[in-house]
Amino acid sequence: MNEPLTNLVPRPGSVTVTDGFFLLDAATRVEADPSLGGVASWLRATIGAATGCYLPPGDSDGGGVHLRIDPGLPAEGYVLDASPGGLRIEGGSAAGVFYGAQTLRQLLPPASLRRARIADGPWRVPGCRVVDAPRFAWRGVMLDVARHFMPVADVLRLVDLAAFHKLNVLHLHLTDDQGWRIEVPGRPLLTSVGAWRETTMLGSRSHSAFDGRPHGGFYTGDDLREIVAYAADRHVTVVPEVDMPGHMQAAVAAYPELGHGYAGPVRPSWGVSSHVLNVGPEALNFCRAVLDHVCDIFPSELIGIGGDECPVTEWQESAVARERARAEGLSGPDKLQPWFTARLAEHLAGRGRRLYGWDEILAGGAPPGSVVAAWRGVAPTSHAVRAGHEVVACPDTSVYLDYRQSDDPGEPTPVGTRLTLADVYAFEPIPEGLTAAEAALVLGGQANIWTEHLESARRVDYQAFPRLCAFAETVWGPPARDFAEFSSRLPAHLARLDALGVNYRPLAGPRPWDARPDAPGSPRRLDDRLAQLHEMTADLRRSAP
Amino acid sequence: MNEPLTNLVPRPGSVTVTDGFFLLDAATRVEADPSLGGVASWLRATIGAATGCYLPPGDSDGGGVHLRIDPGLPAEGYVLDASPGGLRIEGGSAAGVFYGAQTLRQLLPPASLRRARIADGPWRVPGCRVVDAPRFAWRGVMLDVARHFMPVADVLRLVDLAAFHKLNVLHLHLTDDQGWRIEVPGRPLLTSVGAWRETTMLGSRSHSAFDGRPHGGFYTGDDLREIVAYAADRHVTVVPEVDMPGHMQAAVAAYPELGHGYAGPVRPSWGVSSHVLNVGPEALNFCRAVLDHVCDIFPSELIGIGGDECPVTEWQESAVARERARAEGLSGPDKLQPWFTARLAEHLAGRGRRLYGWDEILAGGAPPGSVVAAWRGVAPTSHAVRAGHEVVACPDTSVYLDYRQSDDPGEPTPVGTRLTLADVYAFEPIPEGLTAAEAALVLGGQANIWTEHLESARRVDYQAFPRLCAFAETVWGPPARDFAEFSSRLPAHLARLDALGVNYRPLAGPRPWDARPDAPGSPRRLDDRLAQLHEMTADLRRSAP
Repeated sequence: MNEPLTNLVPRPGSVTVTDGFFLLDAATRVEADPSLGGVASWLRATIGAATGCYLPPGDSDGGGVHLRIDPGLPAEGYVLDASPGGLRIEGGSAAGVFYGAQTLRQLLPPASLRRARIADGPWRVPGCRVVDAPRFAWRGVMLDVARHFMPVADVLRLVDLAAFHKLNVLHLHLTDDQGWRIEVPGRPLLTSVGAWRETTMLGSRSHSAFDGRPHGGFYTGDDLREIVAYAADRHVTVVPEVDMPGHMQAAVAAYPELGHGYAGPVRPSWGVSSHVLNVGPEALNFCRAVLDHVCDIFPSELIGIGGDECPVTEWQESAVARERARAEGLSGPDKLQPWFTARLAEHLAGRGRRLYGWDEILAGGAPPGSVVAAWRGVAPTSHAVRAGHEVVACPDTSVYLDYRQSDDPGEPTPVGTRLTLADVYAFEPIPEGLTAAEAALVLGGQANIWTEHLESARRVDYQAFPRLCAFAETVWGPPARDFAEFSSRLPAHLARLDALGVNYRPLAGPRPWDARPDAPGSPRRLDDRLAQLHEMTADLRRSAP
Repeated sequence: MNEPLTNLVPRPGSVTVTDGFFLLDAATRVEADPSLGGVASWLRATIGAATGCYLPPGDSDGGGVHLRIDPGLPAEGYVLDASPGGLRIEGGSAAGVFYGAQTLRQLLPPASLRRARIADGPWRVPGCRVVDAPRFAWRGVMLDVARHFMPVADVLRLVDLAAFHKLNVLHLHLTDDQGWRIEVPGRPLLTSVGAWRETTMLGSRSHSAFDGRPHGGFYTGDDLREIVAYAADRHVTVVPEVDMPGHMQAAVAAYPELGHGYAGPVRPSWGVSSHVLNVGPEALNFCRAVLDHVCDIFPSELIGIGGDECPVTEWQESAVARERARAEGLSGPDKLQPWFTARLAEHLAGRGRRLYGWDEILAGGAPPGSVVAAWRGVAPTSHAVRAGHEVVACPDTSVYLDYRQSDDPGEPTPVGTRLTLADVYAFEPIPEGLTAAEAALVLGGQANIWTEHLESARRVDYQAFPRLCAFAETVWGPPARDFAEFSSRLPAHLARLDALGVNYRPLAGPRPWDARPDAPGSPRRLDDRLAQLHEMTADLRRSAP
């Protein structure tokens, strides 16, 4: 009866077992603070069809479910009390109550997580008191919908799965060399040309194999508004990213005047394109107009502008870039990116927003108030906070979920360093050696799902789970964690993922149909990657305060 | 304001425009007959998050939404009355009320169909009286999850889309030569071996191209129970099919003792396998055990056993088959299939079920009480009813949605005859020349979605829509239809599909990224196909009463 109390993921701050159980049945009503109507409706819609307990509003004569805000609790924290007399969830805010309700879902049998009723119950919640609150404010997952387009329904499903694990940020990587996924008024070629490619590379670059199949798709403004609203209903903020000034080949393919003479198609291969944005007046106005549209759709205070991996080769040969550098008093075209990033930051500030960028924006000085996604290993997190920036830690060597999960030759398209479940579980967002003040600038962490090799929601599931469950504990729970203890909880949690229809990687290893012999990978050794990252971030060390 | 009244799909029996409008808002309550709690909950969950109108139970002081059963109406029929004073839906049964509620969803703006709120409203329903009932009791769609596995979430989404078009049967083709998708207790190899193939043919057989990528997946019993329950909540019956005695190479690959010595893998190519079931005692017991498990999961009165395209070549050379034919007094192995089908029908009858099979089961006499899915053109429908069988009309030349939608060279993997939207709209389930009594045996029609070339839900969407909208009118509406009139309603309906996230084929033709140059098709001319069907059904004409 008490089994779910010892199997919650992410593990709550404290769980006290009490007597008896709370019985949820068709007569159970839910009484909620007026501001919590959304949580009650969500809970009703989530468990109603699976349990037959639709939780209509009402007070069940004092029993039943009670949802309350207690401003004395941490904003995202909650206390859940289950007893034969009733079930009470108090949260510091609606988000806290929502997380208490997510814990309630895990305290019920896994069948309650399905979308229709396959079991008769009884739907018992073991008597308990759960006191819980997150360690970090930013508990994110990034989804790359540029390399492979993902239909709206699949994105919403990922939002549900993220929220189930008490994550609260979905960073959407909307554009890249291989595809532009956001419809922009007045710029129809971004989608009619930029949203598809003629063929797609199979496996990693070393193999030069292509599938010969066009791939495309984009989101309308209303599609994105739906994603934003759906996520908000689940206390997830969608942080959009339009990657600039590099990773823009799809935009340049649509509007060659944005580039330096490139007149070819959207990029069909992986890796970084040299066909970047020119930084002339027209190109800058284009970026501002795109960001205005993004701000119209996404209420997120932070707006991602990418800023990663921008080769300067075209700028060095381009009259537009050289003229811009001269006009702005820059010593050369290689100084253009910080200048460009600062212009975007100013523009966003005019809309009441802040700039969010990959850690390359630290080179030459990131705009004040901008937030850094620190991905090139652990070092950039420290560099960012020492430069006074808030930072989201997402080191590829810990939380890049496209990286291979094991050395098993059956892993699909193995790329990157090996990131086992234990490796992800060992992730610590705050690097060693920071002062308390510096550590306070670490907003949290983010697991990144790049989709070069993930062409479907099933493949995304396979890469994300169960590693995203482990990741959730690194940003929700206290720093002291024990992988063996987590592992003991995991089988019960996998039964929940089964009920949710998640195509997670089996603990025993890939199934025969998970293999991708047609799309071979390119595994890296960790020490090689660490050396490479050290080299890649040399400029940060040179400019460190 | 009255626009949606003229744009409903499928078109209702009658619509009368009345004054004013009914305003749905956050205060609107729903009063429902006790037996209609499920419809109210579904409606609440469906439109609540998108409109902010959560329709709590209550009577809104006489206004509000009222759901009632009126036994005087046809079982699946309904009357919807919308006026400033309230909105009333009366149905002949819960299903009728459900269809009235589906019409209500179409009377609201398309934004109400999204899964979260992107618009403020007002949520107005034009004043009207809609009187409506279906023509046919069987309004089906078949999904082949054997050729390509489809995750549970995508199947549930198709159920929603089918129900939105007032369809009420989902025929699930669960097994075939290329994959076995249902977990069966005590038969683990059906899934560990039978549920995946090493590679998949790209395009039609004439090209002999393969993708070199394993493909697999299967449903657990609970997964299928969830699909059944979810569909039942939407008044859709799931009719399972386990195809026997042909189309069984996946099962034979798992358990070679079921076959005639074949010891190879699951079939990677399309077309019909010659590796069929042997009909010895062990194989028959296997089939009975599988059907028992299927009956445990699926409450459908009808249970599909396939029965199509079973080559007799292996039977002619097999000692087991010859012995069986001799023991049963059959003139030869070619008489084995009717004998086998009769045994399955007996077994199903013992479970209170009836057999459902493709029209090949008519050859040699289908078991009494069995229902025929007539697919080989129009003729088998007539043959079936003249032999006294109930029949579901699904002629490939009208409703095989994997067939190409146009002659456009950009159509993905064009196979079959050309089936334009107009061709599907012209489908008539009751062939000419039947008596009234014979016509009464035509239960309805079914659109079939074979998935050799549809590897994802997006591809299924493309093939199914908008043709499934046209199909819905052929089974819901009266026989007199006008394609031009349908076409005038379609743009407004496509806006609904946009809100529902359906990747329908644009009316203007395929987008560049819909093409499949890597998987070329094999289009057929209609006259060639008609001649082929005439030949294929020669045995039916010879045995006609």
